[in-house]
Amino acid sequence: MKLVPLGDRVVLKQLVAEETTKSGIVLTGQAKEKPQEAEVIAVGPGGVVDGKEVKMEVSVGQKVIYSKYAGTEVKLEGEEFIIVRQSDILAVVE
Amino acid sequence: MKLVPLGDRVVLKQLVAEETTKSGIVLTGQAKEKPQEAEVIAVGPGGVVDGKEVKMEVSVGQKVIYSKYAGTEVKLEGEEFIIVRQSDILAVVE
Amino acid sequence: MKLVPLGDRVVLKQLVAEETTKSGIVLTGQAKEKPQEAEVIAVGPGGVVDGKEVKMEVSVGQKVIYSKYAGTEVKLEGEEFIIVRQSDILAVVE
Amino acid sequence: MKLVPLGDRVVLKQLVAEETTKSGIVLTGQAKEKPQEAEVIAVGPGGVVDGKEVKMEVSVGQKVIYSKYAGTEVKLEGEEFIIVRQSDILAVVE
Amino acid sequence: MKLVPLGDRVVLKQLVAEETTKSGIVLTGQAKEKPQEAEVIAVGPGGVVDGKEVKMEVSVGQKVIYSKYAGTEVKLEGEEFIIVRQSDILAVVE
Amino acid sequence: MKLVPLGDRVVLKQLVAEETTKSGIVLTGQAKEKPQEAEVIAVGPGGVVDGKEVKMEVSVGQKVIYSKYAGTEVKLEGEEFIIVRQSDILAVVE
Amino acid sequence: MKLVPLGDRVVLKQLVAEETTKSGIVLTGQAKEKPQEAEVIAVGPGGVVDGKEVKMEVSVGQKVIYSKYAGTEVKLEGEEFIIVRQSDILAVVE
Repeated sequence: MKLVPLGDRVVLKQLVAEETTKSGIVLTGQAKEKPQEAEVIAVGPGGVVDGKEVKMEVSVGQKVIYSKYAGTEVKLEGEEFIIVRQSDILAVVE
Repeated sequence: MKLVPLGDRVVLKQLVAEETTKSGIVLTGQAKEKPQEAEVIAVGPGGVVDGKEVKMEVSVGQKVIYSKYAGTEVKLEGEEFIIVRQSDILAVVE
Repeated sequence: MKLVPLGDRVVLKQLVAEETTKSGIVLTGQAKEKPQEAEVIAVGPGGVVDGKEVKMEVSVGQKVIYSKYAGTEVKLEGEEFIIVRQSDILAVVE
Repeated sequence: MKLVPLGDRVVLKQLVAEETTKSGIVLTGQAKEKPQEAEVIAVGPGGVVDGKEVKMEVSVGQKVIYSKYAGTEVKLEGEEFIIVRQSDILAVVE
Repeated sequence: MKLVPLGDRVVLKQLVAEETTKSGIVLTGQAKEKPQEAEVIAVGPGGVVDGKEVKMEVSVGQKVIYSKYAGTEVKLEGEEFIIVRQSDILAVVE
Repeated sequence: MKLVPLGDRVVLKQLVAEETTKSGIVLTGQAKEKPQEAEVIAVGPGGVVDGKEVKMEVSVGQKVIYSKYAGTEVKLEGEEFIIVRQSDILAVVE
Repeated sequence: MKLVPLGDRVVLKQLVAEETTKSGIVLTGQAKEKPQEAEVIAVGPGGVVDGKEVKMEVSVGQKVIYSKYAGTEVKLEGEEFIIVRQSDILAVVE
């Protein structure tokens, strides 16, 4: 089973928070910061969305930063995904 | 009797939550998670909605993920449906 | 006396709630569910509404489902009506 | 002295609530229902309002139903009027 | 010194409330009703405002009714003025 | 160092409140009214702002009245400025 | 690793608050004012954003003033950045 986003939607999968700090300390659950980075899993076709032409600019596999609180969390076969509009993606991490 | 949606509306029927977890545990009422998946029952004709041309992209029988809190719950002859705008449908599950 | 709606307005008359449940129990006042179904009594001419061309798609006599909380309740000669915009009508019941 | 409305504004005068109920009971002040009916006193010229062309469709002398809470109450020489936008007029009573 | 309004702004000067009621009673400060009438002192050039062409329709010296709570109160050399957008002017009093 | 505003922004410097009332009384700090007058320090280039063509109509050195609560206060080298959109400027004082 | 902004987004890096006041007093942590100045680190490609053509007008290395509360704070490899829309940048400091 897979998610096929509509319009300008993008399916993201949150990256797991780094378990080690810069200085080498290993973090346990609570101390880990919720990451804002995610991987692009699927990209909608774009086209006319809400009366405006939208061209998709991200692609599957890219690592992106997305706007906190944006999007809808979705669970499919036990795995969690976030579906956002492309306009909620702020930047690509290269 | 059947529901014929207007404009960009889509009639959905919520799928029943899975009664068994991945690990095989059988869930009772309270523990079942409210699913966000639904089946498309009827699709409006699209056309000019709120001054903007809308092309319908979902079709009857598809399983879709829709935005939580969107739509209006409707009861017809004892059965419950949800009527949403197509823009509240986030992705198709294939 | 009759109501002639302007623009994209539609005059509705709420259908009386069914007094008997599926299982045959007769319901009294309080237990009856407020129905979301209504009959179309009069339809405005459509045309340019709020700068956008609106084509009327419902017609007098149809049974429709309308958005809860939408519209204005109006009393004319003791009878109650609801005036809604066509966009607050979700589906026709056939 | 008279009020000459600008743009898509319409000057209304609320009709006095009926003092007798259907069953013939004479109502005193408090028991009278605030009517939603009003008479059209003056109609603005229409034209481009907020960047959109508005054509006036009501005319002086018509009895109309207007949206509760809409409009501004105005007092001129002791008489009370309500100034609304034409879009706040729901229907004409014929 | 004078105020030259920009765009679709209009400079108004509130008319002093009538000090005598219809029945001839002289009102003191507190009892006087805050009038909604004002005189047009200066009119902006109109033109493209917020992306829309606005044509000015009021002129200096007219008495107008304006929307309560609209506009900004301004004090210039001890005198008080109200600056409103033309769309906050409801009607001209003739 | 100087502030070069972007788009339809205008850099203003608030004028100091008059220290003497009309009747000649010298006011101390607390009694002075916060003035709504400001001097134009720098004017953005205008152009397409939020999809709409904006033509700049104020110029450096003019005294203007601006909308209370509008704009952002900015401190540069110990001096305070207010950056507003041109549409928050109500009138020029001549 | 670097941040490549999408659309009309701009990556900013907040400038450290000045540690010495005009009069030469050295400030400690708490007394330092949070600066509104930032340096431009990366600029999106512009283009059609939300249905409107946006031309990028800031460039990497410029010092800018941005609207307080705008933007999203992002942490990449221990460094903090702010991603804003170009329209949240008020002025360039030269």
